[in-house]
Amino acid sequence: MEKIVSLCKRRGFIYPSSEIYGGFANIYDFGPLGVELKNNLKKAWWGEMIKNHKDIVGLDAAILMNPRVWKASGHLSAGFSDELLECKNCHKRFKLDEVEDNKCPECKGKLSKPRKFNLMMKTFVGPVENEAAVAYLRPETCQGIYVNFLNVVNSMRLKVPFGIAQIGKSFRNEINPKGFIFRTREFEQMEMQWFCRPKEADKFFDYWKKERLKWYQKLGIQRKNLKITETPAGKRAHYAKRQIDIEYHFPFGWGEIEGIHNRGDWDIKNHSEYSGKDLRYTEESGDKYYPHIIETSVGVERSLFAFLTEAYHEVKGGRTITTKSAKEAEVLLKLPKSLAPIKIAVLPLVKNKPEIVKKSKEVYNLLNPHFMCQYDEAGSIGRRYRRMDEIGTIISIVCDFQSLEDNTFTLRERDSMKQIRIEMSKLQETIQKILEGGDFLKLGKVI
Amino acid sequence: MEKIVSLCKRRGFIYPSSEIYGGFANIYDFGPLGVELKNNLKKAWWGEMIKNHKDIVGLDAAILMNPRVWKASGHLSAGFSDELLECKNCHKRFKLDEVEDNKCPECKGKLSKPRKFNLMMKTFVGPVENEAAVAYLRPETCQGIYVNFLNVVNSMRLKVPFGIAQIGKSFRNEINPKGFIFRTREFEQMEMQWFCRPKEADKFFDYWKKERLKWYQKLGIQRKNLKITETPAGKRAHYAKRQIDIEYHFPFGWGEIEGIHNRGDWDIKNHSEYSGKDLRYTEESGDKYYPHIIETSVGVERSLFAFLTEAYHEVKGGRTITTKSAKEAEVLLKLPKSLAPIKIAVLPLVKNKPEIVKKSKEVYNLLNPHFMCQYDEAGSIGRRYRRMDEIGTIISIVCDFQSLEDNTFTLRERDSMKQIRIEMSKLQETIQKILEGGDFLKLGKVI
Repeated sequence: MEKIVSLCKRRGFIYPSSEIYGGFANIYDFGPLGVELKNNLKKAWWGEMIKNHKDIVGLDAAILMNPRVWKASGHLSAGFSDELLECKNCHKRFKLDEVEDNKCPECKGKLSKPRKFNLMMKTFVGPVENEAAVAYLRPETCQGIYVNFLNVVNSMRLKVPFGIAQIGKSFRNEINPKGFIFRTREFEQMEMQWFCRPKEADKFFDYWKKERLKWYQKLGIQRKNLKITETPAGKRAHYAKRQIDIEYHFPFGWGEIEGIHNRGDWDIKNHSEYSGKDLRYTEESGDKYYPHIIETSVGVERSLFAFLTEAYHEVKGGRTITTKSAKEAEVLLKLPKSLAPIKIAVLPLVKNKPEIVKKSKEVYNLLNPHFMCQYDEAGSIGRRYRRMDEIGTIISIVCDFQSLEDNTFTLRERDSMKQIRIEMSKLQETIQKILEGGDFLKLGKVI
Repeated sequence: MEKIVSLCKRRGFIYPSSEIYGGFANIYDFGPLGVELKNNLKKAWWGEMIKNHKDIVGLDAAILMNPRVWKASGHLSAGFSDELLECKNCHKRFKLDEVEDNKCPECKGKLSKPRKFNLMMKTFVGPVENEAAVAYLRPETCQGIYVNFLNVVNSMRLKVPFGIAQIGKSFRNEINPKGFIFRTREFEQMEMQWFCRPKEADKFFDYWKKERLKWYQKLGIQRKNLKITETPAGKRAHYAKRQIDIEYHFPFGWGEIEGIHNRGDWDIKNHSEYSGKDLRYTEESGDKYYPHIIETSVGVERSLFAFLTEAYHEVKGGRTITTKSAKEAEVLLKLPKSLAPIKIAVLPLVKNKPEIVKKSKEVYNLLNPHFMCQYDEAGSIGRRYRRMDEIGTIISIVCDFQSLEDNTFTLRERDSMKQIRIEMSKLQETIQKILEGGDFLKLGKVI
């Protein structure tokens, strides 16, 4: 765990937020490599939903919503609150399930009685800070989908069953944020809400469970590191008729990365009642009903953390030149091609030969508009390979003395360390093929 | 203006937020087409910054930051507040520059004295709602870049001059949100902060002014609809040494879509002083200095509104079959290829011929994983062309009786309405070329 956190900071993936001010509330910022990784992850999910499933459309609702939404959704009631106990001595607060007897886990002081504490973050919209101006930062993105249900059906001429997908930020005033980016107070969700006939809800629940499990595996997560846990009645969220978690085997143990819920007609029915608008769906036959909803809800930071964990490898025995005989382990970040933040490294063999540097920069300028590239001339070539392995760069292109003669370059593949030689005019096309899954050794002259 | 707003709602671009509850605070949600358009716009900007400018890296900082950030930045002081007057009769509040005499513009009641009102939205982080728990929703994204300056320099081994680009949400408690999505309380920014030597700040200011102006024109905005306004000393933001606005000619008049600022060393110097961390940059020569910053700051919703306005055309005389002789104007949304939310429409000529419907769906399934496609079988072909013109779809593919015989399809280009005929196996490649700017009439058999 500490190794991943440290790699993330050192190599520009993830920094503690406002770190120069001592950080803030277990919130994190994504650095140059982190934002590319996160964007790639969101793109992969969005493509899976919108492009691979033809009956799904996108949406992007605002974080601030009419406060009446949270009455209808049940979030202003006791269901969306934590029971907290305060230590009468040190004044720290704890969740009910964190304390075993009536003593503070930190200072052994006496604890108060439990008190309900809503998890939504409050703000004020408008010129006066009073009750009438209270609004909330949404604690889940899905309500933005439900309140737009009719607008989407009408403007897009959709027929049930169909889905609406959305990526966006949510906020929860967690008492106990923890586990690096696993549980943070500001986080991002990728949610898809599938609207269907009541009778078909069970069928689609099973369908989406399988689909979602497949998706993680398609992106390189091993099945043994994924677990499905069903929440029994009585322990489910207030809206859920059925609820499973997809859990990942994190360094700290199993943790939920996605929830799949059969929400029944809870949402659309409640919003109909609270808003006074009839949100029932009308079939061509004239039948009217509240559509049932199957929800697939991914935590962006959590799943990103899972992909980072799965990709993190330490290799002993020296993969690269500098550490050939060293005992020190090298980090190899085996991110899948679609997720890796940097696809291509362009490396001049030496930096004190102006022609080589010049040609390397030509290659960089040629490729960078098409693929995320990084140019690196600092240190030995072995050290640079090592730096690229550490951040998961798929291909390293080396410009050497031969390149000056015949305009060919060495391409080194990250995981196999195998090399092929490619002519400049073929670089873009070859890399495109490699990134699309082509057989590396068949794409150029093996050396 | 009303025509654009109405088109946006009717065709799934933009809906008022929480509309079933009567909307909320002039906030808007992006529908299925709006989110694709917005994502395309962000992708175009990100590509321009990260891929076309090699010395720029990305970042994604959180919305919630340590409150000390806002002391250092000056946002907690009087500089970031509006002067408001309250009507003693109707209790509405107004900006100082909105009232001409001491009478309420609405009910003619007497107004109070002006009072400072901070524009930041407040929230509480942690279990107790008290002063110690106050945090703010960031009013601008750039502070996330400044506080991460050292982390980015160190982890990415960057040398001045370089830039950091970021896209993200900001919040301002505007008293007077207006102009559809032009001024909203929740909005998104695309900001690039360019760090340079103090001596080079003027040079880079001019460079970025030209670059940014070019970008809008590259994406189809006519120069005559763009205006550059320089803010004179005394009227500038508290941090700005020089400040220009790029304005667009909106339906309601000229309005700022991007600001370019020479922020001098205000930010890095203040954060150094307030945090106690030395954020000076060290040259290889040993020289240390606070880098100066040139900022380019785009409003996502505003620029999206500008692109929609520029694209909006009404054509009389009947472009499509259904309205050939009608007097009614047809809407043609001439969005550039990279921004259009739907690239390809797949249209069966008739829907009562199962073979034609089946083959159309084959085409849709073939292309949808690669391009944003829409399948539409409802209504006459003319009416469907019209619907596609209205949302800016680049190419309409029609499957007709001939398609059943020779597997060729008609491709209709949006703006010219010209048509070519393409074989199924060539569709993907041809469309790729069209979208990359290839000459439509040279890519297939003209019919």
